Amino acid sequence: MMEEAPFCPVAETARLIGDEYVLLILRDLEQGPRRFTSLGPSVAVNAKTLTDRLRRMENQGLVQRRMYPEIPPRVEYELTPKGRALVPIVEAMRTYGDTWLAPGRQDPRRQAL
Amino acid sequence: MMEEAPFCPVAETARLIGDEYVLLILRDLEQGPRRFTSLGPSVAVNAKTLTDRLRRMENQGLVQRRMYPEIPPRVEYELTPKGRALVPIVEAMRTYGDTWLAPGRQDPRRQAL
Repeated sequence: MMEEAPFCPVAETARLIGDEYVLLILRDLEQGPRRFTSLGPSVAVNAKTLTDRLRRMENQGLVQRRMYPEIPPRVEYELTPKGRALVPIVEAMRTYGDTWLAPGRQDPRRQAL
Repeated sequence: MMEEAPFCPVAETARLIGDEYVLLILRDLEQGPRRFTSLGPSVAVNAKTLTDRLRRMENQGLVQRRMYPEIPPRVEYELTPKGRALVPIVEAMRTYGDTWLAPGRQDPRRQAL
Protein backbone atom coordinates (compact mmCIF):
# COMPACT_ATOMS: atom_id res chain seq x y z
CA MET A 1 0.00 0.00 0.00
CA MET A 2 1.19 3.49 -0.87
CA GLU A 3 1.36 5.87 2.00
CA GLU A 4 0.02 9.29 1.11
CA ALA A 5 2.58 12.10 1.45
CA PRO A 6 1.67 14.57 4.20
CA PHE A 7 0.43 17.98 3.06
CA CYS A 8 3.23 20.51 2.56
CA PRO A 9 2.01 24.06 1.92
CA VAL A 10 5.31 25.06 0.29
CA ALA A 11 5.26 22.09 -2.11
CA GLU A 12 1.64 22.74 -3.07
CA THR A 13 2.39 26.42 -3.74
CA ALA A 14 5.53 25.44 -5.68
CA ARG A 15 3.30 23.41 -8.00
CA LEU A 16 1.40 26.61 -8.82
CA ILE A 17 4.22 29.14 -9.12
CA GLY A 18 7.38 27.10 -9.78
CA ASP A 19 7.57 28.51 -13.30
CA GLU A 20 9.30 31.64 -14.55
CA TYR A 21 6.47 32.69 -16.87
CA VAL A 22 3.74 32.16 -14.29
CA LEU A 23 5.65 34.47 -11.95
CA LEU A 24 5.92 37.14 -14.66
CA ILE A 25 2.21 36.86 -15.49
CA LEU A 26 1.40 37.35 -11.80
CA ARG A 27 3.65 40.42 -11.73
CA ASP A 28 1.80 41.92 -14.71
CA LEU A 29 -1.74 41.06 -13.59
CA GLU A 30 -1.04 42.50 -10.15
CA GLN A 31 -1.52 45.90 -11.84
CA GLY A 32 -5.00 45.01 -13.14
CA PRO A 33 -6.62 43.22 -16.11
CA ARG A 34 -4.47 42.75 -19.21
CA ARG A 35 -5.09 41.73 -22.78
CA PHE A 36 -3.37 38.68 -24.20
CA THR A 37 -1.58 40.78 -26.81
CA SER A 38 -0.13 43.08 -24.16
CA LEU A 39 1.07 40.22 -21.94
CA GLY A 40 3.17 38.57 -24.67
CA PRO A 41 5.87 41.24 -25.05
CA SER A 42 5.90 42.00 -21.34
CA VAL A 43 6.44 38.38 -20.30
CA ALA A 44 8.78 38.03 -23.32
CA VAL A 45 7.40 34.67 -24.36
CA ASN A 46 5.80 33.21 -27.47
CA ALA A 47 2.02 32.94 -27.87
CA LYS A 48 1.95 29.15 -27.47
CA THR A 49 3.69 29.21 -24.09
CA LEU A 50 1.67 32.19 -22.89
CA THR A 51 -1.58 30.42 -23.85
CA ASP A 52 -0.43 27.30 -22.02
CA ARG A 53 0.43 29.16 -18.81
CA LEU A 54 -2.76 31.26 -18.82
CA ARG A 55 -4.88 28.15 -19.34
CA ARG A 56 -3.09 26.36 -16.51
CA MET A 57 -3.59 29.36 -14.22
CA GLU A 58 -7.25 29.50 -15.21
CA ASN A 59 -7.69 25.79 -14.39
CA GLN A 60 -5.99 26.33 -11.03
CA GLY A 61 -8.38 29.16 -10.25
CA LEU A 62 -5.70 31.87 -10.24
CA VAL A 63 -6.81 33.78 -13.32
CA GLN A 64 -10.15 34.64 -14.81
CA ARG A 65 -10.59 35.07 -18.55
CA ARG A 66 -13.19 37.56 -19.72
CA MET A 67 -14.33 37.93 -23.27
CA TYR A 68 -15.99 41.15 -24.42
CA PRO A 69 -18.27 40.69 -27.45
CA GLU A 70 -16.77 43.51 -29.45
CA ILE A 71 -15.58 43.42 -33.02
CA PRO A 72 -12.89 42.17 -32.97
CA PRO A 73 -13.57 40.37 -29.67
CA ARG A 74 -11.50 41.60 -26.76
CA VAL A 75 -10.14 39.05 -24.26
CA GLU A 76 -8.78 40.11 -20.91
CA TYR A 77 -7.22 38.21 -18.05
CA GLU A 78 -7.37 39.18 -14.42
CA LEU A 79 -6.46 37.68 -11.08
CA THR A 80 -9.07 35.89 -9.00
CA PRO A 81 -8.94 36.29 -5.18
CA LYS A 82 -6.91 33.05 -5.08
CA GLY A 83 -4.51 34.58 -7.60
CA ARG A 84 -4.37 37.95 -5.89
CA ALA A 85 -3.43 36.20 -2.65
CA LEU A 86 -0.12 35.31 -4.36
CA VAL A 87 0.85 38.99 -4.62
CA PRO A 88 2.76 39.02 -1.28
CA ILE A 89 5.05 36.36 -2.78
CA VAL A 90 5.66 38.58 -5.82
CA GLU A 91 6.37 41.49 -3.48
CA ALA A 92 8.88 39.39 -1.51
CA MET A 93 10.55 38.61 -4.85
CA ARG A 94 10.68 42.33 -5.68
CA THR A 95 12.38 43.07 -2.36
CA TYR A 96 14.87 40.26 -2.90
CA GLY A 97 15.67 41.33 -6.46
CA ASP A 98 16.18 44.94 -5.46
CA THR A 99 18.49 43.92 -2.63
CA TRP A 100 20.52 41.13 -4.21
CA LEU A 101 20.23 41.33 -7.97
CA ALA A 102 20.20 45.01 -8.97
CA PRO A 103 22.87 45.81 -11.58
CA GLY A 104 25.87 47.76 -10.38
CA ARG A 105 25.00 46.90 -6.83
CA GLN A 106 27.79 45.32 -4.85
CA ASP A 107 27.17 41.79 -3.79
CA PRO A 108 25.90 42.25 -0.19
CA ARG A 109 27.97 39.23 0.79
CA ARG A 110 31.10 41.20 0.02
CA GLN A 111 29.96 44.18 2.00
CA ALA A 112 29.59 41.87 4.98
CA LEU A 113 33.17 40.61 4.72
CA MET B 1 20.57 48.49 -32.18
CA MET B 2 18.98 46.43 -29.42
CA GLU B 3 17.66 48.39 -26.52
CA GLU B 4 18.51 46.80 -23.21
CA ALA B 5 15.46 45.84 -21.15
CA PRO B 6 15.20 47.84 -17.93
CA PHE B 7 16.03 45.99 -14.72
CA CYS B 8 13.02 44.24 -13.19
CA PRO B 9 13.68 42.80 -9.71
CA VAL B 10 10.76 40.36 -10.02
CA ALA B 11 11.96 39.03 -13.39
CA GLU B 12 15.52 38.59 -12.12
CA THR B 13 14.29 36.73 -9.05
CA ALA B 14 11.96 34.62 -11.22
CA ARG B 15 15.04 33.47 -13.17
CA LEU B 16 16.46 32.10 -9.91
CA ILE B 17 13.40 30.51 -8.33
CA GLY B 18 10.92 29.92 -11.17
CA ASP B 19 11.34 26.19 -10.81
CA GLU B 20 9.44 23.74 -8.64
CA TYR B 21 12.51 21.78 -7.54
CA VAL B 22 14.57 24.85 -6.70
CA LEU B 23 11.75 25.98 -4.42
CA LEU B 24 11.66 22.59 -2.69
CA ILE B 25 15.44 22.58 -2.24
CA LEU B 26 15.20 26.03 -0.64
CA ARG B 27 12.48 24.74 1.68
CA ASP B 28 14.69 21.86 2.78
CA LEU B 29 17.95 23.81 3.15
CA GLU B 30 16.15 26.45 5.20
CA GLN B 31 16.41 23.93 8.05
CA GLY B 32 20.19 23.63 7.77
CA PRO B 33 22.81 21.72 5.74
CA ARG B 34 21.64 18.56 4.00
CA ARG B 35 23.29 15.66 2.27
CA PHE B 36 22.56 14.94 -1.37
CA THR B 37 21.12 11.53 -0.49
CA SER B 38 18.67 13.03 1.96
CA LEU B 39 17.49 15.75 -0.45
CA GLY B 40 16.49 13.32 -3.21
CA PRO B 41 13.54 11.63 -1.47
CA SER B 42 12.43 14.87 0.17
CA VAL B 43 12.33 16.84 -3.08
CA ALA B 44 10.93 13.70 -4.76
CA VAL B 45 13.11 13.99 -7.83
CA ASN B 46 15.67 11.83 -9.60
CA ALA B 47 19.42 12.23 -9.02
CA LYS B 48 20.09 13.78 -12.43
CA THR B 49 17.58 16.61 -11.98
CA LEU B 50 18.64 17.18 -8.37
CA THR B 51 22.31 17.43 -9.46
CA ASP B 52 21.34 19.89 -12.19
CA ARG B 53 19.39 22.16 -9.85
CA LEU B 54 22.02 22.09 -7.10
CA ARG B 55 24.76 22.94 -9.60
CA ARG B 56 22.68 25.81 -10.98
CA MET B 57 22.02 27.13 -7.48
CA GLU B 58 25.73 26.83 -6.69
CA ASN B 59 26.63 28.81 -9.85
CA GLN B 60 24.09 31.47 -8.91
CA GLY B 61 25.65 31.79 -5.47
CA LEU B 62 22.59 30.48 -3.59
CA VAL B 63 24.04 27.22 -2.31
CA GLN B 64 27.44 26.16 -1.07
CA ARG B 65 28.70 22.62 -1.51
CA ARG B 66 31.01 21.25 1.15
CA MET B 67 32.90 18.03 0.87
CA TYR B 68 34.17 16.29 3.99
CA PRO B 69 37.16 14.00 3.35
CA GLU B 70 35.74 11.02 5.12
CA ILE B 71 35.52 7.48 3.83
CA PRO B 72 33.18 7.41 2.03
CA PRO B 73 33.32 11.19 1.35
CA ARG B 74 30.40 13.15 2.72
CA VAL B 75 28.97 15.99 0.64
CA GLU B 76 26.64 18.56 2.14
CA TYR B 77 24.78 21.52 0.70
CA GLU B 78 23.87 24.65 2.59
CA LEU B 79 22.43 28.07 1.81
CA THR B 80 24.76 31.05 1.33
CA PRO B 81 23.60 34.46 2.63
CA LYS B 82 22.23 35.17 -0.89
CA GLY B 83 20.29 31.89 -0.69
CA ARG B 84 19.11 32.45 2.87
CA ALA B 85 17.74 35.83 1.82
CA LEU B 86 15.18 33.89 -0.27
CA VAL B 87 13.65 32.34 2.87
CA PRO B 88 10.99 35.11 3.26
CA ILE B 89 9.68 34.09 -0.17
CA VAL B 90 9.45 30.46 0.97
CA GLU B 91 7.64 31.63 4.12
CA ALA B 92 5.16 33.64 2.02
CA MET B 93 4.55 30.45 0.03
CA ARG B 94 3.94 28.53 3.27
CA THR B 95 1.36 31.09 4.38
CA TYR B 96 -0.34 30.97 0.99
CA GLY B 97 -0.42 27.18 0.89
CA ASP B 98 -1.82 26.91 4.39
CA THR B 99 -4.54 29.44 3.58
CA TRP B 100 -5.54 28.45 0.06
CA LEU B 101 -4.38 24.91 -0.63
CA ALA B 102 -4.77 22.88 2.56
CA PRO B 103 -6.80 19.69 2.00
CA GLY B 104 -10.30 19.65 3.38
CA ARG B 105 -10.20 23.40 3.72
CA GLN B 106 -13.05 25.22 2.04
CA ASP B 107 -12.05 27.40 -0.84
CA PRO B 108 -11.84 30.85 0.82
CA ARG B 109 -13.44 32.32 -2.29
CA ARG B 110 -16.61 30.44 -1.42
CA GLN B 111 -16.60 31.57 2.17
CA ALA B 112 -16.51 35.12 0.89
CA LEU B 113 -19.63 34.65 -1.27
